[in-house]
Amino acid sequence: MTDTAAPRRGRGRRTRSESADTRARILAVAREEFSERGYEKTSVRGIAKAAGVDSALVHHYFGTKEQIFEAAVEVAFAPAFRARDTVVDGPLDGVGERLTRMIFGLWENPVTRAPLLAIVRSAVNNESAAAVFRKLISAQLLRRIVEQLDLPDADLRTELAAAQLVGVAMMRYVIKIEPIASADPEQIIARVAPVVQGHLTNP
Amino acid sequence: MTDTAAPRRGRGRRTRSESADTRARILAVAREEFSERGYEKTSVRGIAKAAGVDSALVHHYFGTKEQIFEAAVEVAFAPAFRARDTVVDGPLDGVGERLTRMIFGLWENPVTRAPLLAIVRSAVNNESAAAVFRKLISAQLLRRIVEQLDLPDADLRTELAAAQLVGVAMMRYVIKIEPIASADPEQIIARVAPVVQGHLTNP
Repeated sequence: MTDTAAPRRGRGRRTRSESADTRARILAVAREEFSERGYEKTSVRGIAKAAGVDSALVHHYFGTKEQIFEAAVEVAFAPAFRARDTVVDGPLDGVGERLTRMIFGLWENPVTRAPLLAIVRSAVNNESAAAVFRKLISAQLLRRIVEQLDLPDADLRTELAAAQLVGVAMMRYVIKIEPIASADPEQIIARVAPVVQGHLTNP
Repeated sequence: MTDTAAPRRGRGRRTRSESADTRARILAVAREEFSERGYEKTSVRGIAKAAGVDSALVHHYFGTKEQIFEAAVEVAFAPAFRARDTVVDGPLDGVGERLTRMIFGLWENPVTRAPLLAIVRSAVNNESAAAVFRKLISAQLLRRIVEQLDLPDADLRTELAAAQLVGVAMMRYVIKIEPIASADPEQIIARVAPVVQGHLTNP
């Protein structure tokens, strides 16, 4: 906003704005590189080169390769993590369906499906990427659901519910086994949502 | 048997036995290479070299790289595919628990866990390996269960049941999210088996 409204309002401000631009450009490039090549084949040098900066600057803004990956994944899933509030804040007896619909929404949308596929592929093949995946899934999504459940085994319940959703995503979007790969999403949601709900709240 | 009992009983027989040995050796090497490197990084040339034969001989016995992969996976899972008969042939109201126990047995056993991990990693990253995985899972396991269910949507039911098991395996053995990664298998089986049964037979 201040960029166009008041350019060159002093050297400090200008530099800060340029820094933000550079950081955003590096992050955009990193997202693309990780999506296309996966975690293992992506290098900090490659990201720096594609962004037209020095590797040291990439490290300066983000830290290690693992931390760049984490930042890239977080940006890609910002809309999902916002949707999460709607999932967890509603009535508990509908949380299974809300969660199932949110996850299907992410996978059915090509914009979010591509980075999701990239994360799954990276996490399955690389321990550092798996660690990022674990951290994000646990801290950003599952933890919030666990807090809503007033049950001693809420952690395990939440992970078993997530497992049903992860498994459907694997069979439908990654391995593509028929007929689940081509089935109407509503048909799958009708069968999966009660299972997710059951894992979370059944006695 | 004839190998030690009656050696050199004529040129034809001898050659056949030698061929079987060579074929078995190539297959053993292929299993190891695919397990260690994954599908993409394994080459027919590399398998041939490690087995001490010419690439043409590998192609002669097995065909394409995809077909070698299929043969290697089939050998690795021969015990599992035999256990499958026990799963599908028992009473239908216990099929969920029998299937869940069979799958957990495979993953908990280090001998079968390693090739399972290799297959999952390969299938997630490579379309040819995914095709082999689809074919094996569908033809060797799911198809047999579908035949037992006298229901119009038996295919989708079986795949949703499999999805719950695939998801638990992903979270516990591949991504290793806690507490599901360290939970007592019996605790997980107690929660997962009824879900698998429900997908298969609930009205």
